[in-house]
Amino acid sequence: MSGSAAAVTSEERAARAVWSGLVEPGDAVAGALVEAVGAAPALDWVRRRVAGSCTSTDGAWEQLEQRGGDLGPHGRRQVERALDRWAPRVARAADTDPASWRSEAERAGARVVVPGDDEWPAGLQGLGLTAPLCLWVRGAAIGPALDRSVALVGARASTSYGDRVAFDLADGLVHREACVVSGGAYGIDAAAHRGALHAGGRTCVVLAGGVDRAYPAGNARLVERTVTDGGAVLAEVPPGAVPTKSRFLQRNRMIAAMASATVVVEAAWRSGALSTAHHAARLLRPVGAVPGPVTSVASVGTHRLLREGVAVCVTDAAEVMELAGLVGTDLAPAHAEDVRAGDLLDPHARAVLDVLSARTPRSADEIAASAGVALSQARGALGLLELDGVVVRVGGLWRRAAVRRP
Amino acid sequence: MSGSAAAVTSEERAARAVWSGLVEPGDAVAGALVEAVGAAPALDWVRRRVAGSCTSTDGAWEQLEQRGGDLGPHGRRQVERALDRWAPRVARAADTDPASWRSEAERAGARVVVPGDDEWPAGLQGLGLTAPLCLWVRGAAIGPALDRSVALVGARASTSYGDRVAFDLADGLVHREACVVSGGAYGIDAAAHRGALHAGGRTCVVLAGGVDRAYPAGNARLVERTVTDGGAVLAEVPPGAVPTKSRFLQRNRMIAAMASATVVVEAAWRSGALSTAHHAARLLRPVGAVPGPVTSVASVGTHRLLREGVAVCVTDAAEVMELAGLVGTDLAPAHAEDVRAGDLLDPHARAVLDVLSARTPRSADEIAASAGVALSQARGALGLLELDGVVVRVGGLWRRAAVRRP
Repeated sequence: MSGSAAAVTSEERAARAVWSGLVEPGDAVAGALVEAVGAAPALDWVRRRVAGSCTSTDGAWEQLEQRGGDLGPHGRRQVERALDRWAPRVARAADTDPASWRSEAERAGARVVVPGDDEWPAGLQGLGLTAPLCLWVRGAAIGPALDRSVALVGARASTSYGDRVAFDLADGLVHREACVVSGGAYGIDAAAHRGALHAGGRTCVVLAGGVDRAYPAGNARLVERTVTDGGAVLAEVPPGAVPTKSRFLQRNRMIAAMASATVVVEAAWRSGALSTAHHAARLLRPVGAVPGPVTSVASVGTHRLLREGVAVCVTDAAEVMELAGLVGTDLAPAHAEDVRAGDLLDPHARAVLDVLSARTPRSADEIAASAGVALSQARGALGLLELDGVVVRVGGLWRRAAVRRP
Repeated sequence: MSGSAAAVTSEERAARAVWSGLVEPGDAVAGALVEAVGAAPALDWVRRRVAGSCTSTDGAWEQLEQRGGDLGPHGRRQVERALDRWAPRVARAADTDPASWRSEAERAGARVVVPGDDEWPAGLQGLGLTAPLCLWVRGAAIGPALDRSVALVGARASTSYGDRVAFDLADGLVHREACVVSGGAYGIDAAAHRGALHAGGRTCVVLAGGVDRAYPAGNARLVERTVTDGGAVLAEVPPGAVPTKSRFLQRNRMIAAMASATVVVEAAWRSGALSTAHHAARLLRPVGAVPGPVTSVASVGTHRLLREGVAVCVTDAAEVMELAGLVGTDLAPAHAEDVRAGDLLDPHARAVLDVLSARTPRSADEIAASAGVALSQARGALGLLELDGVVVRVGGLWRRAAVRRP
């Protein structure tokens, strides 16, 4: 179990585990009900409503509202509608048995993490009522590490360029002590997880299905390696749950909410990675996009994010960290401006140096006329440049010194 | 000569031609003086001041200010300082002979274009007092064409990727009836000019030196082809003038001002193309940058422009034209959103379809529980999907139809 489990009753934890199997991810009505009256009382009430042991006319609402305050007519209507969609699962006894979650967790080698636990990712609060009701977690307690984390997401149909960039970014982020979050898919996701593991860092795989079934199956070894190498694998649906399309989209919202920033490495014009980026933007989390060749269809989505102003252009781990990190402490190092000969000269000296020949010596008059400066300015500049060894006096004439520039 | 030459006296045109050789490009004091009293009177006055035939104490200022209004003490001081830097060239008689410009122009096959001429590029007004005093032009009357034009600029040390993109962009811009402006340098500039010529369109080469000396010499044939194929080659310095470093920088301001928008294709971290982009941004002209692989040093400068918010990300000619063109008429075509199976379904039907197996038929109860929808919603969705031929009823059970999706 998790660190400060004391703060959460085992009844509440069990009820949240059951809820995670009863409703689809992102069900705001379930979130509101659990928040209003607590997971266990809400579950108990829902079970009795579905079983028909109480109806809406025999004081069912009053029972509920005694605990949670007035839901109001709109809230009541929403819950009535939700009861219809929850009913088919509630009707299956096993799904609602608060005792069964333990065996499910044990079988999958997972634990159930709930709000109030130390390892509950703080960023999930940004999701409000659509936050996961619990997380099924295998591996390390990842919560605190997520305070300094980057979601690296992108195309399954990635190019070798994208894979390389994702791997290198993940490696660079680990060296900046950040945790790399991704979805465990083929392509960019896998490259990001691999880069983080390769660098000996932490990575977090957020699955759309249960934590006992790596999807895609081809990445099962990567998922296992994540667990054994200090990372974590997590999902908001219980072990055994299949990854459906809508669960993939809901998984993307979790990735966006958990990470400090989201970076898209490659993406098609329409892709899951873009949905993650838009989730992050809606949560006011920083979003980055890695550019690529305009001739590559794999970069069409990242360029779209840049064009639409959703994402900032990022090209290396330092720039990503500047996006994700703490203001001031994680600024990307200033790009080394290569100071060139002439940069430190005043404009007159630069103009004079510009027109000097290394072969043909010329008079100060000619030089002033060529450079378009006053004769006195030309003379002054020539004198200073001579001291620097940049120009040479030949009789009364001047030429550029024939040495290579530093 | 140019179209509406009637509006400009030949004396004024001649004087501007002389001025263009007397001062360095972008000399705001010359610009102010010419604007205040006219090019010919200003030239006459400057010649007499330098020759010493009048001094600042014998009414020289009064002579000047009779025509142009009070320059004020600050203006007077600026002009006194400018006289010092103009003097070395004014002292050479040939440089100030208003008659000599004609022979210079003839020798170079060029004409002198001044403000007031039809072919004077309207965009140059944005430069205010630092606008060119005249243009030396070879080839077509390019002025009106510049109202719909794009500057394509970039690295001399370009990659084959950058060359290809510049060529293709220029080609696409010509097909959108835009004129391509660039600097005639190796690399991106040359590729842009070539792409425009290849497409049978207009292109404009803006040189830092005289129009009679293509720089670099290796592009001399490209410059000649521009003139013969309906384009134009122009400069603000007279024929024979050498391209110095500061003239390259001033040339960049002209490119930025003349074109409707500036697009950088490839650029080093520090480069002339970036200076053009910054000039354009300062003139409130749209700026685009073409992304490239983050692993390419040739794209470091364009990514810098994107990161710093100076430029918009552009990936094809349609997007460039949206930047440069008239609002509404040149919008890039909406990207074809590929509608996928399921897109047009309501959420319940999508959820039901999502959990249906093509092999194992299941009951509506099971399907509702899997999909997380109410039993009535599942039944309704299954009925509609059956009508669409997407699901098949097998006894009382349902499975997905085994046909490939459209």
